[in-house]
Amino acid sequence: MNPFYETAARPHRKDEDGFTRQEVALANRNHGIALEALRYDITPVGLHYLLTHFDIPAMDTSSFSLSVGGEVENDVSLSLEDIRALPAKTQTVTMECAGNGRAHLYPRHPSMPWLNEAVGTAEWTGTPLRNVLDMAGVKDSAVDIVFLGADRGFDRGHEHVFGRSLAPDHAANDDVLLVYDMNGAPLLPQHGAPLRLIVPGWYGMASVKWLTRIEAVDKPYEGFQQVDGYQYKQGPDDQGVPVQTIRVKSLMTPPGIPDWFTRQRMAEAGEIIIEGRAWSGGGVPVKKVELGINGVWHEADLLPGAQTYAWSKWRFAWNAEPGEFTLACRASDVDGQVQPDAPRWDNSGVGNNGIQQVQVTVR
Amino acid sequence: MNPFYETAARPHRKDEDGFTRQEVALANRNHGIALEALRYDITPVGLHYLLTHFDIPAMDTSSFSLSVGGEVENDVSLSLEDIRALPAKTQTVTMECAGNGRAHLYPRHPSMPWLNEAVGTAEWTGTPLRNVLDMAGVKDSAVDIVFLGADRGFDRGHEHVFGRSLAPDHAANDDVLLVYDMNGAPLLPQHGAPLRLIVPGWYGMASVKWLTRIEAVDKPYEGFQQVDGYQYKQGPDDQGVPVQTIRVKSLMTPPGIPDWFTRQRMAEAGEIIIEGRAWSGGGVPVKKVELGINGVWHEADLLPGAQTYAWSKWRFAWNAEPGEFTLACRASDVDGQVQPDAPRWDNSGVGNNGIQQVQVTVR
Repeated sequence: MNPFYETAARPHRKDEDGFTRQEVALANRNHGIALEALRYDITPVGLHYLLTHFDIPAMDTSSFSLSVGGEVENDVSLSLEDIRALPAKTQTVTMECAGNGRAHLYPRHPSMPWLNEAVGTAEWTGTPLRNVLDMAGVKDSAVDIVFLGADRGFDRGHEHVFGRSLAPDHAANDDVLLVYDMNGAPLLPQHGAPLRLIVPGWYGMASVKWLTRIEAVDKPYEGFQQVDGYQYKQGPDDQGVPVQTIRVKSLMTPPGIPDWFTRQRMAEAGEIIIEGRAWSGGGVPVKKVELGINGVWHEADLLPGAQTYAWSKWRFAWNAEPGEFTLACRASDVDGQVQPDAPRWDNSGVGNNGIQQVQVTVR
Repeated sequence: MNPFYETAARPHRKDEDGFTRQEVALANRNHGIALEALRYDITPVGLHYLLTHFDIPAMDTSSFSLSVGGEVENDVSLSLEDIRALPAKTQTVTMECAGNGRAHLYPRHPSMPWLNEAVGTAEWTGTPLRNVLDMAGVKDSAVDIVFLGADRGFDRGHEHVFGRSLAPDHAANDDVLLVYDMNGAPLLPQHGAPLRLIVPGWYGMASVKWLTRIEAVDKPYEGFQQVDGYQYKQGPDDQGVPVQTIRVKSLMTPPGIPDWFTRQRMAEAGEIIIEGRAWSGGGVPVKKVELGINGVWHEADLLPGAQTYAWSKWRFAWNAEPGEFTLACRASDVDGQVQPDAPRWDNSGVGNNGIQQVQVTVR
């Protein structure tokens, strides 16, 4: 008897899991990494996760300009050519959506129903943001640097362009980039062409796409995506704690071959090499990755050579005998943070770094 | 009162629509076109729809070979270099998943829950398949030409590599290509690298990815994806009718700006240019596109210049006054086929070319 058959053939129950049409529409429109693509150090174009709040705007690169204003000595307006002429820096960055893992939580915030796949690693090329801020001369009166995109829409009744801010000290960090190339080619429309921000080590919401305006402000920025959209909240009326750096996390490539619909796995007995990636936020290195086999944890090999803001590769040689297995992986970072076995519930469904579990039949 | 607020803020009901976790996992993993990307004649990389049955296989281009055998005069084995040395042909092709629109049907086949977005247009470069078939010399005893990919898995209990067949006459058509480039660059892993088949005018399942083996056979091919997976069926026990050419269809770019979660639209009163795309299968040209505004149909401008297998652009200037509107679009082809107002139910959820509807608030 093929153990996959029962599950795949079981009648479809209308109420199972209860995801809405709106959630499915977002899932069809946005996309995650295919977990087997964790094999690539740099995620191929089209497999890097993508989350677009509003519509991808129609941008004209030739007439594009970035304006810098507010609490600055000189208002600045730069074409893409001007920005490309500034000193270039390329950085490999693992980016994760703050909402990754949201669909493992219940009750679930009505939003993009990510399971495990909202991650990717790219080589971003641009110029340090500070080069542009220095041209404008940020005044001491500035308490926030605001980044505004060209994408506009509604969220819970609030009409706005997507905007986020960074503290002036953070904005002046050499690793925060104004980016025009991804993996050696001009940004694709959906990744923010012609210009975006990259804030390495933070969840993806900080890396504003279709960036057109930078404004230094003398009061804390209160844009919707800053003070409401990305907050850890224990309930709907909780003011929340800002979502910032990425929490330590790991993922594995599921071994063997899949069932098309259930994605359950079938693997051959013998040595199975389990591979995956692990990362943390804020430039904190990963210290350890463990592979769980039916609840027993084994330390995996963590491969050296990871760049500051990029994921590490890990590997475990599993001598697999026939049977049913639940595999899991768990990373820890040098700051002592460890992935929790059970996800921490959050009202907005953000920051879920609970361990991934994969069911495997070994034959 | 903002009309978007009520909907977006309404409590999340667990049983609404009842999509399963498996469906959501497939939707996160695969992806559709963002409808605003209908603006591009050629869909940018990463925005073209993608449907992968099993895992994306790890292919090594340098050691890759395509073997041709079975009912042929000479077994042939070709490297990618050999295939690139054959006469090249580039063709612009609109491809649509046979399951596009499946999630509008109820009851719903447990599979990828596409709504409207499983479509895209690319420039495919390769060599006509017949060049390779002629090298092998297909015998008169061959009744089917079988195409096998490197991707392996289970579907409803059947373990198999993804395989499809074409009738010998169809396989010898100059428009059926062995493709190595997409939009002028080598195929990406997820689109079938290093080599795939492109069968223009047919739904996407015919265009086998990660193609490694071609076999001429003397009995009709009975692979799972040929005789079970892609059949129009009126019930689970119906033998079915093969899914082949694409049915006439159209889509519009939703006007105005969206609400993040519901994707409801808000547009400004005045002239609104509604644009979209229309296509049919088998090389049949689109004849007419109509835009429906609250149930009244208006003929849109169908722009000339579409290539044989590529979508046409259409446009309608709408003089919009404030209010609530349901927009729809409907295409007809020169064979007299018209999109139905209500989708035709199918047990596998394939071939749904019912009209797209978009709700818009004009203010």
